[in-house]
Amino acid sequence: MPDSSEPEKWVKQDTELHADCRVFRILKSRFSHPARNEKGDFFILDAPDWVTVVAITPNDEVVTVNQFRYGIEALSLEVPAGMVEPGEDPLNAGIRELREETGYTGTDPKLLGWVYPNPAIQNNKCYVVAITGVERNTPVVWDDHEEIQTRLIPVKNIPSMLANGAFTHSLSWCAFQMYFQKYSL
Amino acid sequence: MPDSSEPEKWVKQDTELHADCRVFRILKSRFSHPARNEKGDFFILDAPDWVTVVAITPNDEVVTVNQFRYGIEALSLEVPAGMVEPGEDPLNAGIRELREETGYTGTDPKLLGWVYPNPAIQNNKCYVVAITGVERNTPVVWDDHEEIQTRLIPVKNIPSMLANGAFTHSLSWCAFQMYFQKYSL
Repeated sequence: MPDSSEPEKWVKQDTELHADCRVFRILKSRFSHPARNEKGDFFILDAPDWVTVVAITPNDEVVTVNQFRYGIEALSLEVPAGMVEPGEDPLNAGIRELREETGYTGTDPKLLGWVYPNPAIQNNKCYVVAITGVERNTPVVWDDHEEIQTRLIPVKNIPSMLANGAFTHSLSWCAFQMYFQKYSL
Repeated sequence: MPDSSEPEKWVKQDTELHADCRVFRILKSRFSHPARNEKGDFFILDAPDWVTVVAITPNDEVVTVNQFRYGIEALSLEVPAGMVEPGEDPLNAGIRELREETGYTGTDPKLLGWVYPNPAIQNNKCYVVAITGVERNTPVVWDDHEEIQTRLIPVKNIPSMLANGAFTHSLSWCAFQMYFQKYSL
């Protein structure tokens, strides 16, 4: 029968760099389990925090981006997203990523919440920022290899598009879920 | 101003193993961009497909699991989840992971959908399976290093718990979102 007591926390003993992969690093960390006197090595994807942005135009459209994703070797429709720079406020990171990827700018960003992309193997958070009243008024600034198509989608169409598989990125799902939690349709 | 045309798809040229990390591998793949005659190396987290399970008891409680997660070095409350074995049907994987992690079993699983955990750097899917009428009637079978506390939570409490940060795993968020899309409260 399942144990109903709270599990013991493992204690990290040591960490070494296992692989440097540019936008993330793989660490090999040695953990010990005090109560069991057990040890184990675990691989951790070490990445900066990320931010996703739900940006809404004055016409109640969401600013979405369509781009090639190397993991799945296909185009993927998502909300704008990126890395939070060292020392950067997640709200400013959201404004910056939206501007760089799409040319849209807005003020008064709101932090809707955050999730761990994958607490089992990653150590970073993904913040979710909402920005309303956004307008396209600056040139895009794409990173090397970025090539991004911007699409405006009526907010009211998002739930059926989620149900129909138009969005498949788990972190875009979380962003929309937090947005609709706060701003019901 | 943003480009409104659909981005070009890169073409994979070559892949090599960069690091073997037991529950995943890091691949280094060389891609080319036909239109730009450009090449680039990208690191991909290669993992089997995953499955998350929304399991509901006859008393309208969700079966959740609380366990230590090495990525965040803390306990994490989540829906049961795991890897789909090679050749295994995601529905059967959901039944198996639920049984192994919690001792609960159920029949008539339903596939609610799937997401890509991270299409930018990972190549796998995460399926979401709903199983109703589950009962605890088998011993748990934990993997090495697993130590899992099972908690039953009334389904009606889940939305407020999501809003209050009781669940922080992005894939548990997606699982609940798909469940409530299909079975409104």
